[in-house]
Amino acid sequence: MLNSIALVGGTHGNETSGIQLVRNWRQHGLPQRFSDLNVSLNIANKEALAANVRFLEQDLNRQFTFDALAENNIAKEAMLAKTLNEQLGPKGNSKTDLVIDVHNTTSAMGATLIILETDEFHIQLARYVKHHMPEANILLEDEKPYLEHGYLCTTGKKGVMIEVGAQPQGVLREDVYLLTQTMAEVILDFCMAYNEGSITTDALPPCDVFRLGENVSFPLDEEGYRTAMIHHALQDADFKPLLPGQPVFRTFDGKDIVWESSTETYPHFINEAAYFKLNVAFATADKILL
Amino acid sequence: MLNSIALVGGTHGNETSGIQLVRNWRQHGLPQRFSDLNVSLNIANKEALAANVRFLEQDLNRQFTFDALAENNIAKEAMLAKTLNEQLGPKGNSKTDLVIDVHNTTSAMGATLIILETDEFHIQLARYVKHHMPEANILLEDEKPYLEHGYLCTTGKKGVMIEVGAQPQGVLREDVYLLTQTMAEVILDFCMAYNEGSITTDALPPCDVFRLGENVSFPLDEEGYRTAMIHHALQDADFKPLLPGQPVFRTFDGKDIVWESSTETYPHFINEAAYFKLNVAFATADKILL
Repeated sequence: MLNSIALVGGTHGNETSGIQLVRNWRQHGLPQRFSDLNVSLNIANKEALAANVRFLEQDLNRQFTFDALAENNIAKEAMLAKTLNEQLGPKGNSKTDLVIDVHNTTSAMGATLIILETDEFHIQLARYVKHHMPEANILLEDEKPYLEHGYLCTTGKKGVMIEVGAQPQGVLREDVYLLTQTMAEVILDFCMAYNEGSITTDALPPCDVFRLGENVSFPLDEEGYRTAMIHHALQDADFKPLLPGQPVFRTFDGKDIVWESSTETYPHFINEAAYFKLNVAFATADKILL
Repeated sequence: MLNSIALVGGTHGNETSGIQLVRNWRQHGLPQRFSDLNVSLNIANKEALAANVRFLEQDLNRQFTFDALAENNIAKEAMLAKTLNEQLGPKGNSKTDLVIDVHNTTSAMGATLIILETDEFHIQLARYVKHHMPEANILLEDEKPYLEHGYLCTTGKKGVMIEVGAQPQGVLREDVYLLTQTMAEVILDFCMAYNEGSITTDALPPCDVFRLGENVSFPLDEEGYRTAMIHHALQDADFKPLLPGQPVFRTFDGKDIVWESSTETYPHFINEAAYFKLNVAFATADKILL
């Protein structure tokens, strides 16, 4: 049973759609059909929100490993993580059955559900979301065990993220907001069905899931400056198959750099603003059937 | 004669296309046909660029009024403005004949040339740009005299801005970059023709220009929170006619707010991230023939 659910916005202070969803549900209430669910509505990083920045000192959504939570780190977000871990967790022994953390991205990833595990619960959730919201993408980040992730959502017994784009930081777009709200509602619909015991894995068809591969960096010169930009053929093509030989970058002197792998991949987080300083151009993924 | 031209990027540190254009022209040189022009390539706010923010303390692009330049303001950008005014200006008695300041916006404004005057030079420039780059928009901000603006470009005897979008802050998109480069080249082509005396106003057909009206704010509740977002019908519709009765906002409880003016307008800077804190939803404009 999912007796306690936490919906979180504002883990990144300039990602507006989750913040607005929390505000609106606080003001107008959740849709009536969820009245049997116990859902708390949370804004994670109020100071970053007031400053309209992703974070003030360190990325809050990387602070929730056991090591980081145990460290004596006086950065604002490190201290905030400890407080939130008390409120929502504590991680590993949580009072919250499910944490839903709401994000948005400058990449054209549409409405994406990020799951971190492939146990029975998450298979059912992924299939349910894909079945009831066919335009959704499911992204699986299971390169390490659930509790080893540093994400805020891992303070819950179970934790997932909603990631919707394309939306610039500090901007609220109606299309992105509505996709965010729809995905949050579909997840809560799943929670209702799960609690009622009306979900069985076999009843839902298997669904395509994108399994995270690795980050691909921008090409840099010796001084660390980029020598190329995302190719127009790749820009906004998140989760579309990228085939060997297809262009990935366009250098500033006008040459194409192509995808040199021997296999196709499914790029996402293409040209995400938050990864600017890390020089991450996009992430790869394999498509699997879950 | 335009003996001295300054091209400036990075007046806002997270507007990447002008920064990249300056870097690329420094590294690879300007196109050969501009070899007779004296063009300096400048990065305005290096600290903001390193921090990947619009500005550190105050908006640099509002610091160039005579009053602000005379004030004893110790904010980083106020002090930087004095240095830049020495380099590029000084305003009112400038060593630079033309300052071209390159910006980008999260609004879908395409390639927009912003001019601040309607004298013979700027009429010729506007017509030339529109003639050689028909997809360009010309935006006229002449609500006050040229030298009363606080913009960096007013350090030049003449000053214009390039404003291209939609591009999130901290992201470089190939499409936006190429539009930026094309518009910069068309302006320099004009400068060549102007210096050669081969431009006459009569030789170029009159062109449509959008004349800035006023800013329209988001509707707010008593606590200052927004009660509505840009309507999907208005989002990305920069410089398209907005007619009386057409929807402008969608409230968070699902109602449409329509354009109640008696006349059509040409909205732009729709949902611009930099105006988030000011709660500016968009600016209006009239369409005139120049």
